[in-house]
Amino acid sequence: MAKRYPLDAHHVNAETVPARLYFCRSSSAGPSSGSQPPVFRIAISMPCNAFYAQSGGVTAVINVSAAGVIETARRYPDKIGKLYAGRNGIIGALTEDLIDTSLESDAAISALRYTPSGAFGSCRYKLKGYDKDQAPELDPYERLIEVFKAHDIGYFFYNGGGDSADTCLKISQLSEKMGYPIQAIHVPKTVDNDLPITDCCPGFGSVAKYVAVSIREAGYDVASMAKTSTKVFILEVMGRHAGWIAAASGLAAEREGDSPHIILFPEVTFDEAAFLARVEHCVASYGYCTIVASEGLHAPSGEFLSEAGGKDAFGHAQLGGLAPLLAGIVKDKLKYKYHWAVADYLQRAARHIASATDVQQAYAVGQAAVEMAVAGQSGVMPAIIRTSDSPYTWNIAAAPLVSVANVEKKMPRDFISADGFHITDACRRYLSPLIQGEDYPPYVNGLPAYVRLQNVAVPKLTGREFKV
Amino acid sequence: MAKRYPLDAHHVNAETVPARLYFCRSSSAGPSSGSQPPVFRIAISMPCNAFYAQSGGVTAVINVSAAGVIETARRYPDKIGKLYAGRNGIIGALTEDLIDTSLESDAAISALRYTPSGAFGSCRYKLKGYDKDQAPELDPYERLIEVFKAHDIGYFFYNGGGDSADTCLKISQLSEKMGYPIQAIHVPKTVDNDLPITDCCPGFGSVAKYVAVSIREAGYDVASMAKTSTKVFILEVMGRHAGWIAAASGLAAEREGDSPHIILFPEVTFDEAAFLARVEHCVASYGYCTIVASEGLHAPSGEFLSEAGGKDAFGHAQLGGLAPLLAGIVKDKLKYKYHWAVADYLQRAARHIASATDVQQAYAVGQAAVEMAVAGQSGVMPAIIRTSDSPYTWNIAAAPLVSVANVEKKMPRDFISADGFHITDACRRYLSPLIQGEDYPPYVNGLPAYVRLQNVAVPKLTGREFKV
Repeated sequence: MAKRYPLDAHHVNAETVPARLYFCRSSSAGPSSGSQPPVFRIAISMPCNAFYAQSGGVTAVINVSAAGVIETARRYPDKIGKLYAGRNGIIGALTEDLIDTSLESDAAISALRYTPSGAFGSCRYKLKGYDKDQAPELDPYERLIEVFKAHDIGYFFYNGGGDSADTCLKISQLSEKMGYPIQAIHVPKTVDNDLPITDCCPGFGSVAKYVAVSIREAGYDVASMAKTSTKVFILEVMGRHAGWIAAASGLAAEREGDSPHIILFPEVTFDEAAFLARVEHCVASYGYCTIVASEGLHAPSGEFLSEAGGKDAFGHAQLGGLAPLLAGIVKDKLKYKYHWAVADYLQRAARHIASATDVQQAYAVGQAAVEMAVAGQSGVMPAIIRTSDSPYTWNIAAAPLVSVANVEKKMPRDFISADGFHITDACRRYLSPLIQGEDYPPYVNGLPAYVRLQNVAVPKLTGREFKV
Repeated sequence: MAKRYPLDAHHVNAETVPARLYFCRSSSAGPSSGSQPPVFRIAISMPCNAFYAQSGGVTAVINVSAAGVIETARRYPDKIGKLYAGRNGIIGALTEDLIDTSLESDAAISALRYTPSGAFGSCRYKLKGYDKDQAPELDPYERLIEVFKAHDIGYFFYNGGGDSADTCLKISQLSEKMGYPIQAIHVPKTVDNDLPITDCCPGFGSVAKYVAVSIREAGYDVASMAKTSTKVFILEVMGRHAGWIAAASGLAAEREGDSPHIILFPEVTFDEAAFLARVEHCVASYGYCTIVASEGLHAPSGEFLSEAGGKDAFGHAQLGGLAPLLAGIVKDKLKYKYHWAVADYLQRAARHIASATDVQQAYAVGQAAVEMAVAGQSGVMPAIIRTSDSPYTWNIAAAPLVSVANVEKKMPRDFISADGFHITDACRRYLSPLIQGEDYPPYVNGLPAYVRLQNVAVPKLTGREFKV
């Protein structure tokens, strides 16, 4: 596939910023205090340090993006000094718990390409909105700038989904107001696949491949057993608000009768009677019925079905317990023997069956983020721009964060079949390229040889604590 | 690894039978009826047909054994005519629903090496014990011999677990009594890993690899999230009566702190207080806790914990619902945020991450079964005999079915650590070789290219129905 990085692509309204002088805080100035004015020096040719953090739910390939950022940053020693990672995401910046990635060997960073999860730790933590009336010492954005100043950080790379894009945009907007220019680039990542502009979100393609492979395999299994045993199999997959992951399972159904037979989307309100009729039809037609259900399936009341229905022995709503709930309905009304599985974290951590396309794109957005930054851009996200379905070709362009933040890409209604139980050809054309190719990790002793970094802390310089 | 087939191995009391004349029913005699005496002819050099069936829960590699049987049978045209498979296992023999595998191309049979599930269908169906007082036309063993006679079947290959070994033994014993010699060979298969004599059971090594890979990947994920989100993760795996599969997950824990932190075995009665204390200890030590729970975990009452505890919204015991039950206990008592997964069929169908060792062994037992049969043996099972742990070496020997049937291999108590929550080094030495090596299937369009056979039915000849 042709890859290029048209940072000034016409089809993206790239909010480029001109090359500018870098005002980096002198590292010789020691810890700052509120009463001392910060010491600045003009340092056009002096490299600034960079900050990178992972945000939200991790994926099979977010570390691939990390490798893309770090390896590319190492190729610009004249522009980028050290690259610090936030321990546990943005919390690491707020608490000044930075990791010195320069202490990690090239081999260790390269091994991130093969390692799922967030190597520096991630977090679910939403920064409160900027409030000009808040005491500056409690304001998280003021704190970020304080930490960045203290550590000569001139680049901010934030690897996450929609919330992170918003944070990244705010930082790019505030840094200048606060007198400390910082180039903030958002690196897209989310299995939810809900970021706008970009063709897809790194992390999604690998989950997509996992669920399609898994339902194909389970479908073969059930077909073998259906004569005397299991007739209905339900696989619950992620997708609280959009059915992208559930939809991807539909790629496994290439011929009449292939699994999955039924897909339940958050976009389609659960209709028990129609569902049961469809299950019966499948069992009559194929001898069995395989179902992929999105955890975000809604009851007619508007609640999540998993919360509207089942309670466990302790009276809790069964979060993530949609599959057993559906199985119970099938058993009660149709008396079929059933099995069910809940993939949960297995699906998003499954680096062993990652999509090679996803891996390439995850690396490309990390690499492009750094290239955009050193080219002087800020407030942008490297977006994947599809140029052809088949063969799948794409390139990377800079999408302005003002167009990304707080915009959720929904699954088009014409991606769901008229009966609401499967995907359309349009959906297939969109999804199929994203699961192409295998990119196997190395194995030692029969197990994937995933890396653990040293994650050595950078000495603190701000001289104060910040409570998160 | 050194592979040889010492059919007369001294360490196995091989119940060899002498080469004998083959009395095959003439296929020109047409359908038999109860009133006509069957027509026999002596056919020393005439090949007999063979029957192969898959039994019980299928695996990622039972079709590899099928390929081993079929490909090897094709190399002995002077001894073996057609190889018929039972559609849906032994039910196919009882109902005379036979599949003519000779109509499948070499390429299709070869593709079985890469295809999980049972290509001819399996069944959960236990033949009633032989009863000399039963009306012969209702006796399942009489019926099997009737079908075998009608189709000139002189070889019986039964691919399954303990129940199948028992059936196979009975057939080998009864065939001579009933005046129709048939060579019955059991081909071992079960993810439960509970057959005696053989070092392991084909199918188990691949589940073992799947669960070890999966808990490693999920463990990395949880480690990333633990700071602000999920602190406890529970993966439920198969193992109703023995903890072999749960134990295999322990291979992923190679260093202090590695996942899984806790393994819950059916062999160790659940002690809630000790469990919760251990969870707390792990969270304090590592920041999070990952748990693999065997579905067969017992409550102190002796019931399955999953049945003793939770009921779903409809009042059913939550079969396979151990993970949410344990998660509820953790949440209630320790207030940790949790996630849980139930792998169910995904684990045993996961041909995409099969163990290469398992694949080799699955093929070897299929091949050896045919070689034993054509060498004149009956009432035996090709067993995997370990000759060294490291490097892992093994060969195949004929184990007498009288020593296999109705004998269940339990997990040795010294494979479980003193505290009951993990595996010992002895267990590791046993298990580790079984997950070595990867054997990836071919992919088309980003998905594994599993085969579907034509499964053309053989015309019926017995002229009567048999109700199963």
